[in-house]
Amino acid sequence: MFSFVNNHFVSAGDASLKINDLSITRGYGVFDFFRTQNNKPLFLDDYVERFFQSAAYMYLEPPHTKNDLRHIIVELIDKNNISESGMRLILTGGYSNDGFTLSEPNFFISQQPIIMPTAEMFANGVAIISHAYTRQMPLVKSINYMMGVWLQRSVKEQGAYDVLYYDDEGVSEFPRANVFIVSKNDVLVTPIKNVLSGVTRKQVIALAGKFIKVEERAISLQELKSAKEVFMTSTTRRLLPVNKVDDVMIGNGKAGPICTQLYQAFVKLEES
Amino acid sequence: MFSFVNNHFVSAGDASLKINDLSITRGYGVFDFFRTQNNKPLFLDDYVERFFQSAAYMYLEPPHTKNDLRHIIVELIDKNNISESGMRLILTGGYSNDGFTLSEPNFFISQQPIIMPTAEMFANGVAIISHAYTRQMPLVKSINYMMGVWLQRSVKEQGAYDVLYYDDEGVSEFPRANVFIVSKNDVLVTPIKNVLSGVTRKQVIALAGKFIKVEERAISLQELKSAKEVFMTSTTRRLLPVNKVDDVMIGNGKAGPICTQLYQAFVKLEES
Repeated sequence: MFSFVNNHFVSAGDASLKINDLSITRGYGVFDFFRTQNNKPLFLDDYVERFFQSAAYMYLEPPHTKNDLRHIIVELIDKNNISESGMRLILTGGYSNDGFTLSEPNFFISQQPIIMPTAEMFANGVAIISHAYTRQMPLVKSINYMMGVWLQRSVKEQGAYDVLYYDDEGVSEFPRANVFIVSKNDVLVTPIKNVLSGVTRKQVIALAGKFIKVEERAISLQELKSAKEVFMTSTTRRLLPVNKVDDVMIGNGKAGPICTQLYQAFVKLEES
Repeated sequence: MFSFVNNHFVSAGDASLKINDLSITRGYGVFDFFRTQNNKPLFLDDYVERFFQSAAYMYLEPPHTKNDLRHIIVELIDKNNISESGMRLILTGGYSNDGFTLSEPNFFISQQPIIMPTAEMFANGVAIISHAYTRQMPLVKSINYMMGVWLQRSVKEQGAYDVLYYDDEGVSEFPRANVFIVSKNDVLVTPIKNVLSGVTRKQVIALAGKFIKVEERAISLQELKSAKEVFMTSTTRRLLPVNKVDDVMIGNGKAGPICTQLYQAFVKLEES
């Protein structure tokens, strides 16, 4: 298995950064993560675009053009030949002598096999908990997931699958996924403020427009808990129904009809 | 020059982490930073204690006991023989296969020469800007300095030396330093809520008690701007006077008498 580091393909086990990189010393970097299916990257242009936007906001200049990056990705996919995989792009603050000032960024791509949620998991949905928290720079896909990783212990202790952030302005997102509801009056709603611009989120909104009214607006935790359906969207989960939020059951506790319909449409879109 | 990685002394240039470490992929880790003077570590017990507290809060278990760690630090100081230096301890979330779940932590120590502020810099003080921001988990010395590093561009563009965070509850701290004021009624005040428990801060409070009244309480940005003196405290700066906050001059724009007196007492304490 190969990774790509700065400008070279290297054996994945040898891919490393020196300990004075600003990702290690100061948690400074941006990333993105997309899937391959049958050795083809899905929605690659969207991910590359977002990666460059995150980098620009964080004053980090990628060492390759968008076009070169797409070619490198395709070459890495060919070399590794992992049909169904996740690919991670990271761009860091670089090796900093004073431990604080941005330097020439380090860039790498890694690839790993990926297992998607099963049909059974989709049908039953997953339980989630809520946590009061506002992400820093929510529009940027930075590597700052300290809170998300830290909360995993609470998630497991409460027998949940994931945690949904909310604050005074309503629910926002999961550490690694966006959230949607089907409201009491049958509108598909997803928050718009302080959320990452998810690629799956974008596709789901586009697909949904054909058969249900869609709104991007604030959703209070209370509205979410009384919704007909709740589901999450992410690269590694497509759409995944939520059957319980804290102690409140959602709908009949199974995958809802709108989420199911959208899931089928999304899988078709991937295949096309 | 040597670093110490997990359980071995290695050439500093070879000290590295694989790219699936959770510090790199998720910004997850804790650290601490202390100085050596004449090849002796200053206030080592305080720093080691805080490092272990940060680690425990973040569910990271250091691979060495406090006592072993102190011995390793002394051995590294002997090997490198850099009389005046900064030493960084880092403990990360470890190599994570799924890119999110905590694993066995990676631990390292690095050492580098350090240059302290000059007497002239102390006498003239430094200009700072303010920025509305509340740190995440402010009591833990995590590696999350994304905002601090990101703000350096604003700091430089405005010709300032550093940036002070504040929120609705008042000023808190600099990215890497605590803040003190001498109030209008001649009390030394420093914020107590949402601030890192600085080792220099603690020593300054203890030293100050002998000749000025000390309060730990909230300070509004407005009170700070109208204070008789403002100064910062940190490992790499001891005490450093602030001569300007945003566009407001502090005192007569030079090092104040209380800060100067405390600085002299602190240098004596270091030497003892």
